[in-house]
Amino acid sequence: MQVQTPDWVKHAVFYQIFPDRFAKSKQISDAKSKQIYDAKSKQPRKRLFQSASWEDWEAMPTLQGYKGGDLWGIMEQLDYIESLGINAIYFTPIFQSASNHRYHTHDYYQVDPMLGGNAAFKELLDAAHSRNIKVVLDGVFNHSSRGFFFFHDVLENGPYSPWVNWFKIEGWPLAPYTGDAPANYGSWGENRALPEFNHDNPDVREYIMEIAEYWIEFGIDGWRLDVPFEIKTPGFWQEFRDRVKAINPEAYIVGEVWGDSREWLDGTQFDGVMNYIFAGAAIAFAAGDRVVLEQVQSRDYQPYPPLFAAEYAAKIQDLLALYPWEIQLTQLNLLASHDTARLMTIAGGDKDSVKLATLLMMTFPGAPSVYYGDEVGLFGGIDPDSRRVFPLESAWDREILDTHKKLIALRHQYPCLRIGEYKTLYAQGELYIFARILNNQSENEFENEKLLIAVNAGTASAKATFGVAELDFQPGKLLYGDAEVEWNEEGEIQNLSLNVPPRSGCILAVGNK
Amino acid sequence: MQVQTPDWVKHAVFYQIFPDRFAKSKQISDAKSKQIYDAKSKQPRKRLFQSASWEDWEAMPTLQGYKGGDLWGIMEQLDYIESLGINAIYFTPIFQSASNHRYHTHDYYQVDPMLGGNAAFKELLDAAHSRNIKVVLDGVFNHSSRGFFFFHDVLENGPYSPWVNWFKIEGWPLAPYTGDAPANYGSWGENRALPEFNHDNPDVREYIMEIAEYWIEFGIDGWRLDVPFEIKTPGFWQEFRDRVKAINPEAYIVGEVWGDSREWLDGTQFDGVMNYIFAGAAIAFAAGDRVVLEQVQSRDYQPYPPLFAAEYAAKIQDLLALYPWEIQLTQLNLLASHDTARLMTIAGGDKDSVKLATLLMMTFPGAPSVYYGDEVGLFGGIDPDSRRVFPLESAWDREILDTHKKLIALRHQYPCLRIGEYKTLYAQGELYIFARILNNQSENEFENEKLLIAVNAGTASAKATFGVAELDFQPGKLLYGDAEVEWNEEGEIQNLSLNVPPRSGCILAVGNK
Repeated sequence: MQVQTPDWVKHAVFYQIFPDRFAKSKQISDAKSKQIYDAKSKQPRKRLFQSASWEDWEAMPTLQGYKGGDLWGIMEQLDYIESLGINAIYFTPIFQSASNHRYHTHDYYQVDPMLGGNAAFKELLDAAHSRNIKVVLDGVFNHSSRGFFFFHDVLENGPYSPWVNWFKIEGWPLAPYTGDAPANYGSWGENRALPEFNHDNPDVREYIMEIAEYWIEFGIDGWRLDVPFEIKTPGFWQEFRDRVKAINPEAYIVGEVWGDSREWLDGTQFDGVMNYIFAGAAIAFAAGDRVVLEQVQSRDYQPYPPLFAAEYAAKIQDLLALYPWEIQLTQLNLLASHDTARLMTIAGGDKDSVKLATLLMMTFPGAPSVYYGDEVGLFGGIDPDSRRVFPLESAWDREILDTHKKLIALRHQYPCLRIGEYKTLYAQGELYIFARILNNQSENEFENEKLLIAVNAGTASAKATFGVAELDFQPGKLLYGDAEVEWNEEGEIQNLSLNVPPRSGCILAVGNK
Repeated sequence: MQVQTPDWVKHAVFYQIFPDRFAKSKQISDAKSKQIYDAKSKQPRKRLFQSASWEDWEAMPTLQGYKGGDLWGIMEQLDYIESLGINAIYFTPIFQSASNHRYHTHDYYQVDPMLGGNAAFKELLDAAHSRNIKVVLDGVFNHSSRGFFFFHDVLENGPYSPWVNWFKIEGWPLAPYTGDAPANYGSWGENRALPEFNHDNPDVREYIMEIAEYWIEFGIDGWRLDVPFEIKTPGFWQEFRDRVKAINPEAYIVGEVWGDSREWLDGTQFDGVMNYIFAGAAIAFAAGDRVVLEQVQSRDYQPYPPLFAAEYAAKIQDLLALYPWEIQLTQLNLLASHDTARLMTIAGGDKDSVKLATLLMMTFPGAPSVYYGDEVGLFGGIDPDSRRVFPLESAWDREILDTHKKLIALRHQYPCLRIGEYKTLYAQGELYIFARILNNQSENEFENEKLLIAVNAGTASAKATFGVAELDFQPGKLLYGDAEVEWNEEGEIQNLSLNVPPRSGCILAVGNK
């Protein structure tokens, strides 16, 4: 079987947005009680919060509080998002939900009224598409919530409910809110708030497939799937892929699987997974022993123990060997998400760790995904702290922001960073060097192109020497970072010496400075 | 102020349908697991119940069970409904709800998926309108349900919820499902399933107004309002009327108020109420001491004690004096509903009681409303028994059905029965005689027209004699029922003698047999 994944993802740089926390519409905030109309669409932008009690926007996030971010706020920030070089957005859930992260779905067909509802989403989707920005939604199909209509009916009517077989009912009565009695239904992570679907019921299966189809027809560009490994019904994800791709063959399907994902990356299910294997390795190498263990130990990825260059190289080789190349190109690479602490906090505030890891991510095969705020150096421990509001401009870390902008721009400029072959050149001590190579042989529209990327994670400068013949190209032009490049001739052999300053990285193209 | 009410209601005969119990789509039943397409609309008529567990259609109703009636089923029965002479349907709630009567609203914008969802309703609405049948929906705006999104959010997030002020929260924590602790929120009838809105919150008020507008714009012809007297926020129902009528000035607004409704029938709020005052009087006169007390005592209307003709006449005079005539013409008259026992059961199976009361209703000012099944003599005690499924044709009472068809046809044929003046002519013993009169003076499109209606509730034949001059017209032509009409001359005075057989009624027009 030939594995096929969506081309656009190979060239995408994602921005992950947690909708309650990114932006609150200025129009709304400025005119709280007025009905605001968007000049273009004549759509009412009114929301129901004249008297709603939001948590203070600037205050540290809590488990249950809402900040009141909305989709119109995101629309107002599309200039900013575009200025980063972003061309795809992954939204954590936006459907109606009684939780600030919206993973407790109340209605799969309604965008949360607090976010602006389906009308606001349609407007945002159109605005994003007009800027060539793709939009991927988060689908939570393993479980719903206690308030989800069909489960609520079982709560209200017990064995009389027609929907009993939609869930994993174990006995009567159900105890949705009290801890004293057994819940009597299967729930995700033993959390009574999250009743699990019975996916073996063909009605449930059909129900979920239709949701997937509905939003693809609505115009979204793909699905990020929450805990998809929990659904064990044979053929479920194969049917999901078939039905989604039948509507839009270029739709992206990316699963939340933290570890070895071969089971789902056989070409018949997902186009990629959230690449926590990469995240762990990149952080363990770039941040090394700076990693604050309490920020990572409770999560199912490995940003520790620290890695030397050779260990990092080995991990990356293993990772690249795990899945077909076509899949590698559409993995969703990340350094942080709503489910982890932010890298800045993991690294104890060490900016170089952030910059080095970002360099690794932006030069790796697969679509990089920037967790909103990471590009301006936002801090945040494990959740809910990692879900702080996007900071005011005065609090931005300009150095981190510049790093992101530069690296994203280079990724867009050089196709080899996106689809070129990946080749480790050097891995000793804390110096890691690799190349991304587009060859003539490659059947693609792009020119021959080769780049060398070096990362020195150590606190001393580090030097590597290569025979140029062995290297097969002559990088000397610095596109990013600093490094001393020296050419030596040993008899007939030309050697290249690369001296990389401490805690820094660089990208070199063929040619001279 | 000139009171204005919708003209069409004056000429309407309503059919009240309890959607779970009227009809199950044959197409669906016959091909349970297949996706059925309606030939005309190409709309999929698929429903999610391959594995759903319905209560047996024929079994007696229970408090919590669903029978699985649906809107497509109703569509398939429009020929039948039209054949009765019905030109308006009042649906008890159809919005998504975890209760078989659907008064526990889960989502005001979604027609229940079990009924076929919004798509099925649109199809039904169009089909009804193409037959000149109006459609009125039931709006439950005093309270919602435990699963209603905004209340559910308060359950999930407690004081952190932005929607706290949407309800009547009295303390924390809330106890929605356990009886051990105080609920800590205001609920209708102390029923924790039904959290009451805080209508004093402008957001709530706006939310409800927009629902009302949405469905009027969708195409419905009016709202029946559930327990509207519970909403005491000043100006609430005035604004409701203004916003509904701004979209459709002919929309009908009818409140569920069982007693004296002058407070809401001042012309600025409702066009009418569910006329339980009429129902009580009509049953008390027509069924008399046959009324089974246990079927009526728990309800807030007076089908007992038995009334003699003079008492009935007095009650009717009081009722007609209570509201402006324009309102009288758009009252929703009824003999039974989902909230009462059916008349057949109240009268202990006495068919004549049903026929006499139906005669009184069909000749009274205001729109008669037939509770589905009453027209074929369906039995049913107070709920849930009064919500039995519509019976198979083999179980229909043809006599009761003929009575309904004849009387509805006469109501349509004779405008005076709809908009004519009401004049009591005779009320002695158990014989009650009145006239409906359209005069030249009336500013309307209709001819002069006068009908005499007599009801003898007694078990012996009864005779009344009038001077024709005093009567002002000469009825002699039997349109309905049996009666001996005799003309006597006493000197220069012509007298009319009317001899009405026991337990029967008649309608007489001007002229001879």
